[in-house]
Amino acid sequence: MSQLTEQMGAALAAVRAQCPLVHHITNYVTVNDCANITLAVGASPIMADDIREAADVASVASAVVLNMGTLNERTVSSMLAAGKAANKSEVPVVFDPVGVGATALRNETAAAILKEVKPAVLRGNLSEIRFLAGLSAATRGVDAGEEMEDGMEGTIAMARALAEKLGCVVAITGKVDVIADAARAVTLANGHPMLSRVTGTGCMTTSLVASYCGAVADKLVAAACGILTMGIAGELAFARAGAQGTGAFRSAIIDAVSCMDAATLLGRAKLHEA
Amino acid sequence: MSQLTEQMGAALAAVRAQCPLVHHITNYVTVNDCANITLAVGASPIMADDIREAADVASVASAVVLNMGTLNERTVSSMLAAGKAANKSEVPVVFDPVGVGATALRNETAAAILKEVKPAVLRGNLSEIRFLAGLSAATRGVDAGEEMEDGMEGTIAMARALAEKLGCVVAITGKVDVIADAARAVTLANGHPMLSRVTGTGCMTTSLVASYCGAVADKLVAAACGILTMGIAGELAFARAGAQGTGAFRSAIIDAVSCMDAATLLGRAKLHEA
Amino acid sequence: MSQLTEQMGAALAAVRAQCPLVHHITNYVTVNDCANITLAVGASPIMADDIREAADVASVASAVVLNMGTLNERTVSSMLAAGKAANKSEVPVVFDPVGVGATALRNETAAAILKEVKPAVLRGNLSEIRFLAGLSAATRGVDAGEEMEDGMEGTIAMARALAEKLGCVVAITGKVDVIADAARAVTLANGHPMLSRVTGTGCMTTSLVASYCGAVADKLVAAACGILTMGIAGELAFARAGAQGTGAFRSAIIDAVSCMDAATLLGRAKLHEA
Repeated sequence: MSQLTEQMGAALAAVRAQCPLVHHITNYVTVNDCANITLAVGASPIMADDIREAADVASVASAVVLNMGTLNERTVSSMLAAGKAANKSEVPVVFDPVGVGATALRNETAAAILKEVKPAVLRGNLSEIRFLAGLSAATRGVDAGEEMEDGMEGTIAMARALAEKLGCVVAITGKVDVIADAARAVTLANGHPMLSRVTGTGCMTTSLVASYCGAVADKLVAAACGILTMGIAGELAFARAGAQGTGAFRSAIIDAVSCMDAATLLGRAKLHEA
Repeated sequence: MSQLTEQMGAALAAVRAQCPLVHHITNYVTVNDCANITLAVGASPIMADDIREAADVASVASAVVLNMGTLNERTVSSMLAAGKAANKSEVPVVFDPVGVGATALRNETAAAILKEVKPAVLRGNLSEIRFLAGLSAATRGVDAGEEMEDGMEGTIAMARALAEKLGCVVAITGKVDVIADAARAVTLANGHPMLSRVTGTGCMTTSLVASYCGAVADKLVAAACGILTMGIAGELAFARAGAQGTGAFRSAIIDAVSCMDAATLLGRAKLHEA
Repeated sequence: MSQLTEQMGAALAAVRAQCPLVHHITNYVTVNDCANITLAVGASPIMADDIREAADVASVASAVVLNMGTLNERTVSSMLAAGKAANKSEVPVVFDPVGVGATALRNETAAAILKEVKPAVLRGNLSEIRFLAGLSAATRGVDAGEEMEDGMEGTIAMARALAEKLGCVVAITGKVDVIADAARAVTLANGHPMLSRVTGTGCMTTSLVASYCGAVADKLVAAACGILTMGIAGELAFARAGAQGTGAFRSAIIDAVSCMDAATLLGRAKLHEA
């Protein structure tokens, strides 16, 4: 067992022991799922997006999620305030730039957040991260997956370069996930295609990453644990409920996270240290 | 098999092949259900209600849902902008005037939308459509059903007249559904009373109608398919999970839509061409 | 059977016969669950938070929920308008001061609501009610439970004093629930710890209390019934689905409420008239 997997094995217990408070400023589409997955993994969610309390809550939280799923002027200001307050209090920020590349508003908002807030982890799908890395990307919808065009090595190199530029962990989720900081990179090949047929699995992954970030010092470990937890939950949920349909599958994802243990995480992990 | 049912039989495959992007400006109560049912039928949901991106998203979408379930100044402006952009780009708009007749705000908003935006399909329950047709109607709540007072023929005549006036398909859902344009009308007698005990089944029906509208040229066919898909899903969900309660039933609706096939749709349809 | 339990036994039938319209101004995290639990118990939910219709809807509703789960300027004004209109029309208001004690905004909002609106029932967890009673309380998150420090008698005394001061029923939910007005107090020892692992069980309890308030004259009876319904639903849901995980458990809560009957409520009630 490498040092990395050893740390990952201890992370879930750390979340459950510490019950980190995870402040979310997120979209109204999947917010309930984000709250339930945060509880399922053992953390405690709080959603507070008014400018008059966003910074207060962020500075006492264990981690902050900024998710661009549905934007409006009111919550963008609150995201900036919460993110800056979190930075000041050394509370890790996980940024999910949902749909960046799709509209000017999303591009401008992501740019503003990355200018004013230093995330601990940036998590997105390939097209979103490619866009932020300055490469061409066409984003279509927010639940769409995408095959990588330039091979795993190109993706890892892009993630590393962006991680170095932003000084954070970059996590790209897809068929194979890539999690990198300036020095390290891991890939994860867990998950199930049915996850793309349920809304919010990306947002929920971000909430899981933030839950681990609230309890684990090494943010690459935290990001990998969050993504692995969702991937394995998808596999278990498909095995138990996939044949019934996407409604039962969705509920079974939450079930699987709430019943997850470190042995399952490590035993099923298709992890590769690049 | 009539020409209509033949087209309906092909519609589900068209949705799944094309994966239309369905832009929703909708309420925060049932938005997650709308996203999941859109994915379940094979389309791709996007929710973007900020005025700075609503028109951009609408003009590249395959269909647009405007749902009045929860109104506020911010989203009403966005609905108008998205609707006009969709009209300009020939993207079909499905309008769900939730609760019209219940408050002055809802009446004014529905009037403004119908003045500035030309829907492809108007979908509501009987009291909502009666109100828009200028007949007296008392709307109570937003999940309430209502028996028709003036018989099926009166309802069909009203739907046809309103369809002609608005230049769109009018779809009235209830115990028996009526779908009409100026020239044609069909009734559907599928569904289950338990559907009225789950919030959002009306909103989800609208999302299904829009999903079909994004892939099928004939909007009467699209509207009938959307309503039929929900009705049969309700029947299948009741058979499988009704005895457990409304929580299991709700999840089973999504399951049934995600597993739906054309043979089930046509085989179970209680469709009558009026 | 005491007079109280006799009234409680009749309350569920009253809700189902009258189908009270329950107007909610609530948070976007758990609003869908609130709508579904309201339908499950036999009432009819309506969510309308725009200032231009909030008072109109409140004055024709059977009960009004004001829930502070996610605050913003827009909805705080609407809560005040709806609450005042409800008071004027003698529509009972159920106030859920979610997270009061956690931020200045929440403290000010709760104070403003209690200054301008007279609730029929105030429902919160112990830390929230302690804060409103002027005692020290540290609120951490919004889903956190808390052990009582000063024993059941102290809690009952606090609830009674606050009930007398506010002229309403005070309902404190926790491991043991306390429901009191100036003259009476009951405790309930139903429920299951897993309820704290699902978001919105507190909000749903408030919606249940309001559903009963819309059909039952004695608001202490209504509050006790709402809390008892959720507690027993939690027990039944755990028995049926707890081993699967928190996703299945959550769905089973709604199931249990939708299948609840008076015999189950009274037969399982661990009620003590203090």
